[in-house]
Amino acid sequence: MFREGFLMARVFNFGAGPAALPLPVLEKARAEMLDFGGSGMSIMEMSHRSKTFNAVIKAAESGVRKLLNVPAEYEVLFLQGGASLQFAMVPLNLLGAGQSADYVHTGAWAEKAIKEAKLVGSVNLAWDGKSDKYMRIPAASELKLAPNAAYVHITSNETIGGVQYKAFPQTQAPLVADMSSDILSHAFDVKQFGLLYAGAQKNLGPSGVVLVLIHKDLAERAPANLNTMLKYKTHLAEPSLYNTPNTWGIYLIKLVTEWVESLGGLAKLQALNEEKAGLLYKTLDSSAYWKPCAHKDSRSNMNVTWRLGNEALEEKFAKEATKAGLDGLKGHRSVGGLRASIYNAVPKEAVEALVSFMGEFEKKNG
Amino acid sequence: MFREGFLMARVFNFGAGPAALPLPVLEKARAEMLDFGGSGMSIMEMSHRSKTFNAVIKAAESGVRKLLNVPAEYEVLFLQGGASLQFAMVPLNLLGAGQSADYVHTGAWAEKAIKEAKLVGSVNLAWDGKSDKYMRIPAASELKLAPNAAYVHITSNETIGGVQYKAFPQTQAPLVADMSSDILSHAFDVKQFGLLYAGAQKNLGPSGVVLVLIHKDLAERAPANLNTMLKYKTHLAEPSLYNTPNTWGIYLIKLVTEWVESLGGLAKLQALNEEKAGLLYKTLDSSAYWKPCAHKDSRSNMNVTWRLGNEALEEKFAKEATKAGLDGLKGHRSVGGLRASIYNAVPKEAVEALVSFMGEFEKKNG
Repeated sequence: MFREGFLMARVFNFGAGPAALPLPVLEKARAEMLDFGGSGMSIMEMSHRSKTFNAVIKAAESGVRKLLNVPAEYEVLFLQGGASLQFAMVPLNLLGAGQSADYVHTGAWAEKAIKEAKLVGSVNLAWDGKSDKYMRIPAASELKLAPNAAYVHITSNETIGGVQYKAFPQTQAPLVADMSSDILSHAFDVKQFGLLYAGAQKNLGPSGVVLVLIHKDLAERAPANLNTMLKYKTHLAEPSLYNTPNTWGIYLIKLVTEWVESLGGLAKLQALNEEKAGLLYKTLDSSAYWKPCAHKDSRSNMNVTWRLGNEALEEKFAKEATKAGLDGLKGHRSVGGLRASIYNAVPKEAVEALVSFMGEFEKKNG
Repeated sequence: MFREGFLMARVFNFGAGPAALPLPVLEKARAEMLDFGGSGMSIMEMSHRSKTFNAVIKAAESGVRKLLNVPAEYEVLFLQGGASLQFAMVPLNLLGAGQSADYVHTGAWAEKAIKEAKLVGSVNLAWDGKSDKYMRIPAASELKLAPNAAYVHITSNETIGGVQYKAFPQTQAPLVADMSSDILSHAFDVKQFGLLYAGAQKNLGPSGVVLVLIHKDLAERAPANLNTMLKYKTHLAEPSLYNTPNTWGIYLIKLVTEWVESLGGLAKLQALNEEKAGLLYKTLDSSAYWKPCAHKDSRSNMNVTWRLGNEALEEKFAKEATKAGLDGLKGHRSVGGLRASIYNAVPKEAVEALVSFMGEFEKKNG
């Protein structure tokens, strides 16, 4: 169904998100733009309740279900508002009056989730990576979990520091995760979680859709006076179709899951991602010229971060890389440095080109 | 910039929404799919904070500002969650403790807005069209407005009944309108409103974006503990970019505003819409065979609704029309009957084809 290959006009895109999409997905979307499946209209022009779109959203759902091996007691939802609205919806639904929730603070994204929970109720900071400048993930034994927490919230991957959980903590309370930046990059057991969410714009599709996997029991927790759109329960009744969803975004998620299947599924993709990240970390560890940011045991396979000797050199690196067709390598504005986001759709060839560019750069500027 | 014309494979799309998009917009989006403006990537693959996307969102904003003549004291926002989330955000932001808001009940969409406001605070039903089966719009003199209302909420066009305001009421309290189904179809004075919102999927673009025009003063009203994403004020600081917006949807809105300009602007489009609706209503008034639903003074130029002698005949009509390439004419599942949604992107040729089909159908089945 999909063919591999890159047009000359396309750059290698290391942007942190909205990020690279698989070229075969873009080509398919282009081919179907004026007439989706013989309907005589674009997928964007049809009712979200039509048979044609229904087949698309069902395929997106079953694509996600198959790749992540989602058990039947979990609902798969495609909502709007990104992870940012989930930061609020999670406590609004799950943090009952008088309850407290455990949050693990691993960086900028965890911080945003914590801020929204505090607006709703009581938060127990189970761990705070501040003293390590948010450059590592805590061991499970370090977490100070409360005995009666409403839930435990983690951020599976932090894009700014470039840190990622290698194993998820076992918790008594339902585990909730923001997986925006590493969903669909590796296999894991959904049953460990009560709820997980992921903005689509890294590994799933375009921005404007957020994937939510929720254990159906948890959706029952919402207070009665919560507004309809903010209640998970609303979206379970007719999954993702209470209101008009982002139909284009869901269509692209369908294509992305098909693309992952065409590569051989999640295990193959995980191996590829480890290989890609391995190439970069090997270079970063090869000489003191490179100063990788994240602690070794917490290194992200999605966002690889490093510094050079000084900021002027970092700027030079980013600028010359862009000229060489390697785009988006500047670090996040809040921390500086350099960052290569190597999500699913960034091909190994891109990483090889970057590693090669790094070698040349060190030779010239070492 | 745009060329007119329809490919043979495209049907005439009278769907209620997500609805027809201008063909030139789809063609442009198709052409730019793999490489937006020489960036070497799709518009979906780049940071929402990049210079390239910034130019796109600014163009979408200025396109809306120009077409609707939006005064500087209003912010133009592209948010997520559709009108359905606005039903909640409006009272969450504007309905202070101890206050009441006036709502005008003109049909199914107004009802949804009322339901959400009641979850937040006190609602005064200023008018209810129930006794007329929601087939007309009230005169301003019929509204029972409260003296100290926090705001007055109306629905400018109801897609199910097919009724539309021809003039907006003058109100002391800020006027708030759901304009999802007739925004950009005719000229009006934005200064009459404190806030207006419109899901994009009828006249503006694809689903997954909601346009909000808000007087900046109103954005100050939100309670302090309201979650960040739900506060209008959040989205004003860096307009529409607090979190990752639906970048594809905003890009299409930019293209749609350019298409409207290329037709000669809103006045031209309004004349065209009146002409299109006029053709249909003329046919509906031509014989007792057709039974138009909406009261004459409230007829919508966007959604034209009618009945036939019996349901079997209505079904036959919809079925044969679909076969003839006239799609989406079945009435809403809640009321039955027939409905032609003739939004901006539905060309006059489509309406002429429908009128011609109606003539033939009456001859054969009269």
